[in-house]
Amino acid sequence: MKNWIPEEMPQEDELKERLKAAREKLASLQLQIKGHELPVLVLIEGWGAAGKGSAIGTVIKNIDPRFFKVFSMSAPTEEEKRKPFLHRYFVRIPEAGKFVFLDSGWADEVAGQRMRGELDDEQYASRIESVKRFERQLTDNGYLVLKFFFQISHKEQKKRLEELESEKDTAWRVSKHDKWQNKHYEQCMEVFSQYLSDTDSPVAPWYIVDAKDKKWAQLQVLERICSGIEVAMQNASLAVPLLQNVFPLVKQPRLSEIALDKCMTEEEYKEELHRLQQRLGDLHYRLYRKKVPVIIAYEGWDAAGKGGNIKRIAEALDPRGYEVHPIASPEPHEKARHYLWRFWNRLPKTGHIAIFDRTWYGRVMVERLEGFCSTNDWQRAYNEINEFEKELSEWGAVIIKFWVQIDKDTQLERFEERQNTPSKQWKITDEDWRNREKWDAYEEAVDEMLLKTSTTFAPWHILESVDKKYARIKALRIVVEELEKALK
Amino acid sequence: MKNWIPEEMPQEDELKERLKAAREKLASLQLQIKGHELPVLVLIEGWGAAGKGSAIGTVIKNIDPRFFKVFSMSAPTEEEKRKPFLHRYFVRIPEAGKFVFLDSGWADEVAGQRMRGELDDEQYASRIESVKRFERQLTDNGYLVLKFFFQISHKEQKKRLEELESEKDTAWRVSKHDKWQNKHYEQCMEVFSQYLSDTDSPVAPWYIVDAKDKKWAQLQVLERICSGIEVAMQNASLAVPLLQNVFPLVKQPRLSEIALDKCMTEEEYKEELHRLQQRLGDLHYRLYRKKVPVIIAYEGWDAAGKGGNIKRIAEALDPRGYEVHPIASPEPHEKARHYLWRFWNRLPKTGHIAIFDRTWYGRVMVERLEGFCSTNDWQRAYNEINEFEKELSEWGAVIIKFWVQIDKDTQLERFEERQNTPSKQWKITDEDWRNREKWDAYEEAVDEMLLKTSTTFAPWHILESVDKKYARIKALRIVVEELEKALK
Repeated sequence: MKNWIPEEMPQEDELKERLKAAREKLASLQLQIKGHELPVLVLIEGWGAAGKGSAIGTVIKNIDPRFFKVFSMSAPTEEEKRKPFLHRYFVRIPEAGKFVFLDSGWADEVAGQRMRGELDDEQYASRIESVKRFERQLTDNGYLVLKFFFQISHKEQKKRLEELESEKDTAWRVSKHDKWQNKHYEQCMEVFSQYLSDTDSPVAPWYIVDAKDKKWAQLQVLERICSGIEVAMQNASLAVPLLQNVFPLVKQPRLSEIALDKCMTEEEYKEELHRLQQRLGDLHYRLYRKKVPVIIAYEGWDAAGKGGNIKRIAEALDPRGYEVHPIASPEPHEKARHYLWRFWNRLPKTGHIAIFDRTWYGRVMVERLEGFCSTNDWQRAYNEINEFEKELSEWGAVIIKFWVQIDKDTQLERFEERQNTPSKQWKITDEDWRNREKWDAYEEAVDEMLLKTSTTFAPWHILESVDKKYARIKALRIVVEELEKALK
Repeated sequence: MKNWIPEEMPQEDELKERLKAAREKLASLQLQIKGHELPVLVLIEGWGAAGKGSAIGTVIKNIDPRFFKVFSMSAPTEEEKRKPFLHRYFVRIPEAGKFVFLDSGWADEVAGQRMRGELDDEQYASRIESVKRFERQLTDNGYLVLKFFFQISHKEQKKRLEELESEKDTAWRVSKHDKWQNKHYEQCMEVFSQYLSDTDSPVAPWYIVDAKDKKWAQLQVLERICSGIEVAMQNASLAVPLLQNVFPLVKQPRLSEIALDKCMTEEEYKEELHRLQQRLGDLHYRLYRKKVPVIIAYEGWDAAGKGGNIKRIAEALDPRGYEVHPIASPEPHEKARHYLWRFWNRLPKTGHIAIFDRTWYGRVMVERLEGFCSTNDWQRAYNEINEFEKELSEWGAVIIKFWVQIDKDTQLERFEERQNTPSKQWKITDEDWRNREKWDAYEEAVDEMLLKTSTTFAPWHILESVDKKYARIKALRIVVEELEKALK
């Protein structure tokens, strides 16, 4: 707030006139954002009783109900607390061409926790990093993020809270936190001010709204939304600077360096399978009790044996505590959002295991090679994905990523076998053959992916799968080891 | 540096191969940046003896000499110290389609001063604000700003300094500051690290170069420059978010509210003129001794009487201590740079007075109305100009801005008089008549300009100039008052 200079409130007449003009403009802009497929996220933050809700209420009157959603966020529920703190915000981002209004969002959550002493310096710094990454990921991916902070004075807040409390109909709207805020206004102000300065950014700047008058606050929001949309619509498809990697990496071999002659006898396989599955079952129960979330991600060549491998893991688990997510090409409502959205939506809750059969790495493989996203999009994605996994790791998740590796000849054998075995023919499509033709380009993409996304907190593990038995046992062993580590 | 993870240095063979590829790529990109009219500013910062100069030396070998300039910045000279600290950097920004390489820039200057205890917390914070604004202004206006920090260890730096000092030919390259840095490596590291984190931004991020090996450092820089250019070229003409005003404003009347009936008798005029010019002469001498820089800016309608007004100010001044800058449309080499560049180039040194006959406000008047820049460009310019004047004000400058006001009828009278008086015909052109037709649009633009750029540190003053005598005396009075204030 230090650098905040409130604009002078216009006279009654001018206010009315400008309100009318801004409303009409917004009404016409809603169709244009639809046409431009621009997603608009409007964050209304600020003091309790500053009029955030009522401002949203009047703004949306000018938008067709099909084009917006409003979410009134209160303190995280028990269910929400079992997901990463950004989860409940990420799953609510708008789809292309639509608005989402958040009545208080992550600013209120982080600043609130800070005020109440629930975050020490280090935790606060980590939250700020998360928030900055989240907002940058949104704007980098074409989102318009408009951040408003509703400012009222200590006295004004006090007056409003007392007014609300004095009426039966409105008393419920005054929360304990609101009263606490007013009592500790100066300290809260300092925390808010620090938060605003920590998270102000050229790509998603803060607008501080002088909220002493309802209509005036409403006008500031309306006019800012309109000008924000007008600016954003001038940019067709934006390329943004690629950031230097800031995550420690684990060295990975190139695919061509991987020895594929590893194998296992039937006897050893059976013995190990039994032993490891039993241990995994035990571990699952302990994880559940300790509320550790686990994410197991599978990528690999077509016909490399992902399905059979996943099956051997899943067999060992209690069905109430895990889910397998087969990932196909995104549906329209998924395509209309940030490419990580559908994965944020499929995160396990604490204590549960999510197994992904193909993953968010599609961005840097199929989407890259088939041109489903721009060059800048996939080049940026290595960092975005590392940031995503960092977020999961800070939440406490165990992340295990498998690349299931075979050679080109083995793939051909398996394709032909599928083709020639009536019961397996459904498993092989024309697309598989087309992808096979691009083997070399895929290999290059996979090498780059392994190099750039094998972080210490989410390293890749290679499963040599010419002998599927060997690969299954290796996968089980790694899962068991990683879970044991996490439980220590 | 806290979050820095150096990339693994490739093997000799791969290094050579990648160097060759990157050099060839840069050679081909230089023509493309020319075609795209992309200005590229490469900042090479880092430890003494980290190899900054030699890296630049090898990078530029791959660029046609017509397309780049290298500036090796040392400590500010006495001449440079008489300008705002950003001046020597701003005047060196590249023109569209060309490179500028800076061997140490503002990072080294600010961090260096901080290390040596020359900046207290508040001064440091103000420098950081200035740097962030400067870099954002560049990227907002289409500049690619690539920031590299060359990192070497304490031990490595010590070794290199000793090696340099041991040879007669190279001993001169070791500065006192380098040795001081090495002796206080840990503290310096902390300052650098803080600076990098304070000035890291999504629009101009830092790249930390692992400089332990020369060729490896060179490769990192080459590859980053190439990828930076490739990303930047994907953006045609970018619109950027408009920022909320953070500067305190002084209320200004609308032009239509200004009473233009003010006048003055010939007698009073002569008396006052004599008295005020004498005082101004005295003040000029005192300003010169106290090294206060003064900027007087004139804007106003055609034929409003700017020229005669400026003359009455200038007459009173010592010719060795002031300069009048008539501002016409920009020349090609000026148009090829940030629109404020030609004004940075015309700043007075401390103790001097610069009078501008038309100014940087062309951006929000003629450039806006004639479509010489995009809507986003002029909308953003109010803030950019306030930031520019804030920079001047923090440097210690007195800024006096005059709007010379007449009404439309008075202008017509004066135009006709010029047309009908042979000795004055040169003063009137077809363009003046054309501009006159756009009076209403100009009036709207001027009103917005007065509203948004009348800051407390650089407020506008209206000169009612239907009676030119009145306007001249008012201008002199304001100048005298403002200078007296500054000298107190």
